Amino acid sequence: MSFPIALWQGPSPGGSDDAAFTALDAALRAAAAMGAITLVAPEIFLPGYNQPDISARAQRRGGPWYERLAALARTHGCGIVIGYAERDADAVYNSAIAINAEGREIGHYRKVQLFGPREKSIFAPGDAVSTFDLGGLRAAMLICYDVEFAPLVRSLAEAGADLILVPTANPEPNTHVSRIVVPAHAINHSVTIAYANYCGTEGDITYCGASVIVAPDAAILASAGPGPALLIADIDHQPDAALLQTQLHDYRPL
Amino acid sequence: MSFPIALWQGPSPGGSDDAAFTALDAALRAAAAMGAITLVAPEIFLPGYNQPDISARAQRRGGPWYERLAALARTHGCGIVIGYAERDADAVYNSAIAINAEGREIGHYRKVQLFGPREKSIFAPGDAVSTFDLGGLRAAMLICYDVEFAPLVRSLAEAGADLILVPTANPEPNTHVSRIVVPAHAINHSVTIAYANYCGTEGDITYCGASVIVAPDAAILASAGPGPALLIADIDHQPDAALLQTQLHDYRPL
Repeated sequence: MSFPIALWQGPSPGGSDDAAFTALDAALRAAAAMGAITLVAPEIFLPGYNQPDISARAQRRGGPWYERLAALARTHGCGIVIGYAERDADAVYNSAIAINAEGREIGHYRKVQLFGPREKSIFAPGDAVSTFDLGGLRAAMLICYDVEFAPLVRSLAEAGADLILVPTANPEPNTHVSRIVVPAHAINHSVTIAYANYCGTEGDITYCGASVIVAPDAAILASAGPGPALLIADIDHQPDAALLQTQLHDYRPL
Repeated sequence: MSFPIALWQGPSPGGSDDAAFTALDAALRAAAAMGAITLVAPEIFLPGYNQPDISARAQRRGGPWYERLAALARTHGCGIVIGYAERDADAVYNSAIAINAEGREIGHYRKVQLFGPREKSIFAPGDAVSTFDLGGLRAAMLICYDVEFAPLVRSLAEAGADLILVPTANPEPNTHVSRIVVPAHAINHSVTIAYANYCGTEGDITYCGASVIVAPDAAILASAGPGPALLIADIDHQPDAALLQTQLHDYRPL
């Protein structure tokens, strides 16, 4: 494979750092064996998306979770993109971090489109998107509900993003998001999208799995079902030229 | 994961043992990191499905390929199911072998339903199916075209198979096999099927990828696209009881 990306779909660690880092250790070891540039893990994997004490457990950017993730990335020689609850003074953000194989932060993102009353009561919204270099590709992160908003995907495409990495926590029965919406946005904006969901049940939420890696011609490079799965796919895909769209250049605002 | 199965979809090694064992080494290392019971690799991966000199290069069961596969399985602590060209006296078979994590042969199978004039000119057909224990599950192998014949799948289901492992070499444009036919046979016969295809081009064949792991309720536990991918999925799936069929007991021959 020339540009493998790995995607971990597993149950929530349920608030246990040990469970989280044990799962990440195995997935990173496997990803590294296949030469993956990065592993994408779900939303708020630290401490777990549907935990009751998110605010109390949120950690600062660069804190203990960050240090453990960086050490794990260095140990295996594989980057990681993962969601975590970020504490910044009085605010808590639904954030994602990208760490490279040397354990250095190369990207940081705060979810803009918070979903539903629970998220809006816990988190402050982010207000910016950004891109970063990932092994020569221009990469960016969005988190879950974000990727369902075409203008957000469009703003990243305009910024030159080749690849959007999306930690997510998508409950049943919403498989339409990864089966239909995400592939649609990938082809409409000519970007590769890797969408990493949970599976299993956490409190009152049962996640729908169905994680996906989709190419700019909407080719599904890999997808998961309802249960635990690790997907590693080469995103160095030759898109079907006849399918590539030019929405980015054709768009004519009203 | 409680019962992970890994599936390697890659290009043909093109007759190079070095290329074959390098690819298998990485895939087995990754599979073992996730605790996989076995890795499934494509049809005639040794020496490569569309090689011109299959007959001359075929090896006996238990020969040098076997020894190298057994050593690799032991090194990583993960089983392997793989297709190879088998020499037996004057005959050549399109065979698959199952080796466990201790490097011991636990299953051997010769393709019954040879496909097209080329296969029929090279290989003698097999004449039997069998099942074997794989970590407490009853497993069996079929090869490529075999799995498109309902009576063959049925005979394995009657023999108690929970899981059918299928090395394959399926060319474009036949994605209907893994997208439609294989899931249909899985739900009709209440078996899990793991179908491992090639991708890329080998001589005059371009393979269609689209490898799949499908559950007895036709849930797609993992699937690949047109390019290189390693899929690892937990097959300990709770099937949707409302979808499970009873064809095996209901069948009433004319």
